[in-house]
Amino acid sequence: MNSIKTYIETNKDRFLDELFGLIRIPSISSESEHKDDMVKTAQYIVDQLLKSGADKAEIMPTTGHPVVYAEKIIDPAKPTILVYGHYDVMPVDPLNLWDSPPFEPEIRDGKIFARGAVDDKGQLFMQVKAFEYLVSTNQLQFNVKWMIEGEEEMGSPALAKWLPGQKDLLKADLILVSDTSMIAINIPSITVGLRGLAYMEVEVAGPDKDLHSGIYGGAVANPANILAKMIASLHDENNHITIPGFYDDVLDLTIEERRDMARAPFNLVDYKKKLDIKATLCEKGYTVNECTGTRPTLDVNGIWSGYTGEGSKTVLPAKAFAKISMRLVPHQDPHTIAGLFTQYFESIAPETVKVKVTEHHGGFPYVAPTDTAAYRAASKAYETVFGIKPVPTRSGGSIPIISTFEQALGVKSILMGFGLDTDAAHSPNENFHLECFFNGIETITWFYKFYAEELL
Amino acid sequence: MNSIKTYIETNKDRFLDELFGLIRIPSISSESEHKDDMVKTAQYIVDQLLKSGADKAEIMPTTGHPVVYAEKIIDPAKPTILVYGHYDVMPVDPLNLWDSPPFEPEIRDGKIFARGAVDDKGQLFMQVKAFEYLVSTNQLQFNVKWMIEGEEEMGSPALAKWLPGQKDLLKADLILVSDTSMIAINIPSITVGLRGLAYMEVEVAGPDKDLHSGIYGGAVANPANILAKMIASLHDENNHITIPGFYDDVLDLTIEERRDMARAPFNLVDYKKKLDIKATLCEKGYTVNECTGTRPTLDVNGIWSGYTGEGSKTVLPAKAFAKISMRLVPHQDPHTIAGLFTQYFESIAPETVKVKVTEHHGGFPYVAPTDTAAYRAASKAYETVFGIKPVPTRSGGSIPIISTFEQALGVKSILMGFGLDTDAAHSPNENFHLECFFNGIETITWFYKFYAEELL
Repeated sequence: MNSIKTYIETNKDRFLDELFGLIRIPSISSESEHKDDMVKTAQYIVDQLLKSGADKAEIMPTTGHPVVYAEKIIDPAKPTILVYGHYDVMPVDPLNLWDSPPFEPEIRDGKIFARGAVDDKGQLFMQVKAFEYLVSTNQLQFNVKWMIEGEEEMGSPALAKWLPGQKDLLKADLILVSDTSMIAINIPSITVGLRGLAYMEVEVAGPDKDLHSGIYGGAVANPANILAKMIASLHDENNHITIPGFYDDVLDLTIEERRDMARAPFNLVDYKKKLDIKATLCEKGYTVNECTGTRPTLDVNGIWSGYTGEGSKTVLPAKAFAKISMRLVPHQDPHTIAGLFTQYFESIAPETVKVKVTEHHGGFPYVAPTDTAAYRAASKAYETVFGIKPVPTRSGGSIPIISTFEQALGVKSILMGFGLDTDAAHSPNENFHLECFFNGIETITWFYKFYAEELL
Repeated sequence: MNSIKTYIETNKDRFLDELFGLIRIPSISSESEHKDDMVKTAQYIVDQLLKSGADKAEIMPTTGHPVVYAEKIIDPAKPTILVYGHYDVMPVDPLNLWDSPPFEPEIRDGKIFARGAVDDKGQLFMQVKAFEYLVSTNQLQFNVKWMIEGEEEMGSPALAKWLPGQKDLLKADLILVSDTSMIAINIPSITVGLRGLAYMEVEVAGPDKDLHSGIYGGAVANPANILAKMIASLHDENNHITIPGFYDDVLDLTIEERRDMARAPFNLVDYKKKLDIKATLCEKGYTVNECTGTRPTLDVNGIWSGYTGEGSKTVLPAKAFAKISMRLVPHQDPHTIAGLFTQYFESIAPETVKVKVTEHHGGFPYVAPTDTAAYRAASKAYETVFGIKPVPTRSGGSIPIISTFEQALGVKSILMGFGLDTDAAHSPNENFHLECFFNGIETITWFYKFYAEELL
């Protein structure tokens, strides 16, 4: 098993070449013009998995973008690990803020810069390469199945529908996922909580067409002004969310939980400096880590109305739009929350406008126990590579499908992520440290060994 | 003079051909890609004015888009009319809402559909054709000068700087403008008041880059949420503007003024029906016409932030922007108001964000007296063509340069407009009734006759 370091060292250029080939296909799942790119990307992964040692790998159609399924069955009597990942990526705009083209990976300062570098193509590839090593050195002690989807960044709508019919195919003892972050490059952590998500789009419509703001301004309600007012009223002066019933299912943190969280390394001055902000804005009564890890939020992800070009245009816009998402914490149900949002948003609309609310994807929050064989094995693996025990953390992000797995397949997941919060996932200049990439491959390899020791 | 009807009837196809040629050049002044189109348009007008009887016509450079100057001096001892108009047009987006391409004029239901059809190419062309008739039939009794600018829709920044140096060239006794509206197709009116304008652009900046809304949401202030809150706080619950000092220079209407305004034909049910709105939103204590004609306003003309494409993206945007304009009424100074806005907007910004406010163009409000020779002549001209006396009205719109003329040249203007509020100026499907176009040519012709009777 110690030969993994040598294996990485010997093959690292090939690993990067293969990963870069994957990154170069612009698989933006939410933009319909990339439909063909999704299939190309899926095919690329099929080829990679077959080359890495899978017995079979294939593209399976869904109602949306296809799923890649692959497997290597060494012995039906042995336990099975199901590796989950996603080959789709986030949109890239605003394009002008990228220092290099998002789909032309470039290495600078020891990091791979590209859309998908860390989320999730790079992390998925760590899994593929650890698997390749284990197969090629005859050390694989589990059956391994792969389910790589193409709609994670959209909330996995097709996968959620596809899963229930594939229970036999996907039968496994554990789901292994690399799609999360560590605390710092030298402080490993294992994500044991994920926030859920409810994502809404709202339209506020006033007059039937754009109007001249001189002729009508002052008498006709301006949808952009009204939308601003409506959004403003979704938080109170303590930064609590005002939607009635929103917090009903949220459990208060225990004193012990708060004390544990306060122990995680965190420096507010550095945090603010890194983001170039003068002050944070938390819900009153909670710390930064409590707010991002354990409290629900409501953020405008996009807003648009009227004239947004160069110069000026004196228009009273007919419509105003916003994308508004809420991160959810354990026990909040995304569909219930979407319903509460819709009801409240409609209720605060003045009679001068018409309001339309639609629901994009949602996902349930997730919390994992730390007293399992998988957690213990992962913990030992990180310790072996990083020299210190990983910290269990709750991430503010969401991987909605993780809860769905538990519900649909009855299987627990272990989240072994190697990203960093500074990787700019979802932002311009997304990047992934080469050090994290190689450490990831090594740690995952050790995980297979320790997990076998726990189980076999 | 009665032969004007016959002249129009005989030449109407040619008039429309010539106008359509003018409309086809996409002279959007605020978009730099149309810089060459501006010069082409100016040249087109030079050619038209020379063909119509001007002694000379030329393109004069300014610091921005050029001005067309032309003249016909019949006798230096006689009074001079300076015709003002503009050859630039508003942007055309959203393009998908146009039923026909904005720069390919099309006649449907007795209306010309195109950007610039009424604002102001069509109306400017009425002036050219009335002039052509008077020259060709030897009935011109005034010297006529022309000043046609290319930056009206941007607030005439270059013209305001250019004017003071051209006092001799532009020496005139009256400025004649066709760039306003009538009450209805068969209810003529003369605009005696225009609102002023202060146009601001604001930027609210949070973190130094777009962030993952899961990882940072709840702890980092979201500029889009903050901007919404700041915009919301610019109006109070009575729809008064909250900027301190904003109303300081606004005079209350007298009881007589309110009574006169209440006499203008207005049907609230029709007004709402035409715009497809359930309710109007006026400043508390004022009627619709009072609000649009005599009260200052504050409207968001554009707002944008974050992800505005298809589907969803869980981004916490780095910045949020808005274009916000205020229509001003007599005695409000646009620069003072811009200063008050900036000061207030900066003062309400929380420490979690950085705010930048920039000023686009502004303009002073304008009020004209009705006891002048020009007003009486215009009134008789409308009555001759429409069969009823025109109503003096105050428009909610702004033609900032009108006040500048008065200050720079010491000359009064007469606003003889033939548009309708339903023409969708500044909106998709801008149009101009052919009936208004031909009536306009006829009325302007009569104006020259009656104005000569008043003066000579």
